[in-house]
Amino acid sequence: MGNRIKAGIIGYGNLGRGVEKALKLNPDFELIAVFTRRNPDLVKTHSKLIHISDVWNYKDKVDVMLLCGGSAEDLPVQGPEIAAGFNTVDGFDNHKKVAEYLESMDDAGKKSGRLSLVSAGWDPGLFSLNRLLAQAVLPQGKEYTFWGAGVSQGHSDAIKRVKGVKRGIQYTIPVNSAIEEVRSGDMSDLKTNERHERVCYIVLEEGADAKKAEDDIKSMPGYFADYRTTVNVISEQEFVTEHNKMPHGGFVISIGDTGNSTMQRMEFGLTLENNPEFTACVLVAYARAVHRLSGEGKSGACTVFDIPFSYLLPKTTKQLIKELL
Amino acid sequence: MGNRIKAGIIGYGNLGRGVEKALKLNPDFELIAVFTRRNPDLVKTHSKLIHISDVWNYKDKVDVMLLCGGSAEDLPVQGPEIAAGFNTVDGFDNHKKVAEYLESMDDAGKKSGRLSLVSAGWDPGLFSLNRLLAQAVLPQGKEYTFWGAGVSQGHSDAIKRVKGVKRGIQYTIPVNSAIEEVRSGDMSDLKTNERHERVCYIVLEEGADAKKAEDDIKSMPGYFADYRTTVNVISEQEFVTEHNKMPHGGFVISIGDTGNSTMQRMEFGLTLENNPEFTACVLVAYARAVHRLSGEGKSGACTVFDIPFSYLLPKTTKQLIKELL
Repeated sequence: MGNRIKAGIIGYGNLGRGVEKALKLNPDFELIAVFTRRNPDLVKTHSKLIHISDVWNYKDKVDVMLLCGGSAEDLPVQGPEIAAGFNTVDGFDNHKKVAEYLESMDDAGKKSGRLSLVSAGWDPGLFSLNRLLAQAVLPQGKEYTFWGAGVSQGHSDAIKRVKGVKRGIQYTIPVNSAIEEVRSGDMSDLKTNERHERVCYIVLEEGADAKKAEDDIKSMPGYFADYRTTVNVISEQEFVTEHNKMPHGGFVISIGDTGNSTMQRMEFGLTLENNPEFTACVLVAYARAVHRLSGEGKSGACTVFDIPFSYLLPKTTKQLIKELL
Repeated sequence: MGNRIKAGIIGYGNLGRGVEKALKLNPDFELIAVFTRRNPDLVKTHSKLIHISDVWNYKDKVDVMLLCGGSAEDLPVQGPEIAAGFNTVDGFDNHKKVAEYLESMDDAGKKSGRLSLVSAGWDPGLFSLNRLLAQAVLPQGKEYTFWGAGVSQGHSDAIKRVKGVKRGIQYTIPVNSAIEEVRSGDMSDLKTNERHERVCYIVLEEGADAKKAEDDIKSMPGYFADYRTTVNVISEQEFVTEHNKMPHGGFVISIGDTGNSTMQRMEFGLTLENNPEFTACVLVAYARAVHRLSGEGKSGACTVFDIPFSYLLPKTTKQLIKELL
C-alpha cells in the first residue's frame, strides 16, 4: 500500500489492545506506535511502545491518534493536550460531560488546526446514530435503548467492594417481556430498571456469609437496589473458566405511527462477543474519516453525527454506489 | 413556525400520497403543491393540485421537490428536468442504472446550482447505510440482506399477466433457517433464492384451471422458477379484505470476526405496516438535509452516503448531543 494512514494509540488497556488488533484488519492503516504512561520495558507487546512523555516527537509522524484512556480521569485532561498537536478519535462515554469535553476538544483543535472526533464506539456511537435516524424518519415515534446481555465494568467493580466477595462480575440483561412490549408497538414510558435486570456471579472469601453478601449487593443504592437482581455464588474455578469474556450488545428499537395506526418499526442490534474489540473497530473506521476530513481542511471537534458515511470506507463514490447502495 | 421548508411533490401515486402524509408529521415543512400529469380537477385530494406543465411558475416558491414518479419510466426523464431548477429528493431504485442517473442529476444540478439527493428510501437508503457501516466497522465481515415479509409490486404484476388469473399478489418471505444460519455466524455465500421464498395469493377467472395457473406461475423464469414458490387460490372476497395492505421490511445482518473466532454481529431491521408511507418518511428527512446543504452552497447530486446525520433533524448540535448521543 502506498499511502497508509499512520495511526498512534494512546493508552494500552482493553480498548488500546482492541485498536491494535483492529488496525491489522484494515490494510489502509499502519500503527506507528503505542504510547503509554507505564514503563514501556515492562509491557508485553509486539508493537512499538513509547513512553507518553515522548509523544511530541511524533507530531509529524502520526496522522491520527486513537485515544484509549478512560473517560473519567484520562480523557478530560489528555484529550485537549493531544488535540493541541494531533488529529484524534476517542470513545468518551461520560454522557453528562460530553458537551463540555467536546468544547474543550474543539478549542484545542481550532487552535492547532487539527480535527478531533469524540464519543465514537457503539453507545455513544452507532446507537446514537440509530436514535437520531429513527427520530428523523419517525418524528411521532419513540426510541428505546436496551443494553446487554453484557458485562458492566462499573457494576462488576461495585460488587468487588462488598465485604466477603473475592471475585465478582455483573451482567446487564435486557428484560425480554419489555422488548416484546416495545416491538408490539406499545409506546409507554419504560424506565431503565423496567428494561433491564442484573445478574451477578460472585466467588466468596473463605468463611464469608453468602446470604449477607447477596443482601449487601442487592441493596446497593444507585447500582442494584432499583433493579431486579440475581446473585449466584460460584466456585473460583467456574469463575475463571466461564466468566473471562467481555460480551455485550443491545438494541435500539424505534416505533412510530405514520397515520391511522400504521405502525412502523426500526431496529438496530448488536451481539458482541468482545465489547472492547468491537468498540475499537468503530474507532478505527472514524479515524479514517477524521484523517480524510482533516486533509480537506476541517478542524476543531465533531461527533459521529457530523460524518457522512462515505468517509468511513476507503472506497470511491463509484465503488460505494455499485457495491453497497 | 417562522421559516418552514416549502416542499413540492411531483407524482401522486402511493409514494406521493405517503409524502403528503409524512410532511404533516414534520411541522418544519409546509406543502406548497402536488404536481401531476393527470387533470387536477379529476384527482381527489385536500392538497393544492397543479398540472405538471405549470411547475416552472413555482421555481421560487418551492425549496425542495420530492420526486415520487417511478424509477423505470418517470425519473430518468423527469429527474434531470426538475433538477434544472429545483432542489430534489427521490427514491430511484433501479440499481443497475443508479450511477448513470446520478450523473445526469449531478450535471443538471451543477448547471442550475441546485442540489439533488437520489435513491433515498430504505433499500436503497437505510439498508445501504447499514451495509456501508458494517463493512467499515467489520472489514473482514460479510453483509447479508433479507427482504420481507412484504409485497413485491413487480412479482404481483407478473402473476396478473398469467392466463386465468383475475387478481394476484406476491409476498417475498425471508427464509428463517437462512436468517438463523447467518445469525449463528455462518459466513457462507447465500444466493437470493436461498434467502427468500415467494408466496402468492390468486383469484381465478371463472372456469380457469387452478393447476395450470399454479404451474404457469411457478415456472416463470426470472420471477419464480428459481424460488421455492407457493400459490394459494383464494376467493375474491378474501383477497379484498385480507390483501389490501402494503407491508414490507427486512434485515441487513452483518457478521465479522475481530480475531481468534471472536464473532461480532450487527443487525438492522425494519418491520413496516406500510411500505410507501415509510419510504416517504425517509424522503422527507433527506429533503430537510438537501434544503440545508443547498443553503450552504452545495450543488450537484449526492446519495445518502454523503449526508451527515445531523442534517436530518431540525435540532442544534447541542440538542442532538444532549438528547441522542
